[in-house]
Amino acid sequence: MRLTRQTNYAIRMLMYCAAKGDGLSRVGEIATAYSVSELFLFKILQPLVEAGFIETLRGRNGGIRLAKPASEITLRAVVVVTEESFSLAECFETGVVDCPLVDSCALNSALRDALNAFLSSLEKQTIETLIGDRGAIRHRLGISDVAPTQVTRRAAPAALTN
Amino acid sequence: MRLTRQTNYAIRMLMYCAAKGDGLSRVGEIATAYSVSELFLFKILQPLVEAGFIETLRGRNGGIRLAKPASEITLRAVVVVTEESFSLAECFETGVVDCPLVDSCALNSALRDALNAFLSSLEKQTIETLIGDRGAIRHRLGISDVAPTQVTRRAAPAALTN
Repeated sequence: MRLTRQTNYAIRMLMYCAAKGDGLSRVGEIATAYSVSELFLFKILQPLVEAGFIETLRGRNGGIRLAKPASEITLRAVVVVTEESFSLAECFETGVVDCPLVDSCALNSALRDALNAFLSSLEKQTIETLIGDRGAIRHRLGISDVAPTQVTRRAAPAALTN
Repeated sequence: MRLTRQTNYAIRMLMYCAAKGDGLSRVGEIATAYSVSELFLFKILQPLVEAGFIETLRGRNGGIRLAKPASEITLRAVVVVTEESFSLAECFETGVVDCPLVDSCALNSALRDALNAFLSSLEKQTIETLIGDRGAIRHRLGISDVAPTQVTRRAAPAALTN
């Protein structure tokens, strides 16, 4: 049982942005921090922007940042956006499997209950709780220790005017 | 997020055997009932036998049946045997991903908590609870209505002497 790679890196991208505080991040620097391709992260970025988790600021000094406080982005909300399917067994996707039990299968409701328990647990966690000590995670991710608020004040207006 | 196809059919195979009661089933008849290949079910059978969920009786009148009451086989126990991995993200498998957070990642413990909630929910469900009305499921699976105890009395000794 595994979450998709998209979900995994969506959460990590949000963690990176949260660690940056109000400062802007470039997708390229996040790709470098996690040793993954920039193209892959761009693909994940789109649904995160559409869901209102991340905002993009265009232009030479542009970048991405959280569109809402990290404490308001639950893991459940992210997983629901990024996972392609929550059909824990392929037989519950119409037409995929020819099983005589499919219309009244108690396994379906048992798995649905377990999935709800899983998602309820993720509901309690936010990107903020994952970050914990912001200083420590910034250090691990190689984010410079320039105070985030200062970065914002310099970068955001420039990006907005482009 | 999805369970493996092995897990899905392991549960269905156990449900079939439970629906048969003490009667013996042939893997071929289960494959026909679920429209899957016999070879695939044989592959799944092995770990179910090793885990003590199913017993095989060899010989011309042989077959398979539950090795313990259906009420004693929880879905959690089956899933733990048949799922290849419970690393919800690939980064928690040593060496797979080069992430600077891997040693102290709060996402790891958040996902572990969610997984435990998932498994605790499956702990409450048994193959017996999935079967429910045995008559209805026997009908759906095309299992003949000969009383299971009669089938056992005829089939089991013959199989054991082969």
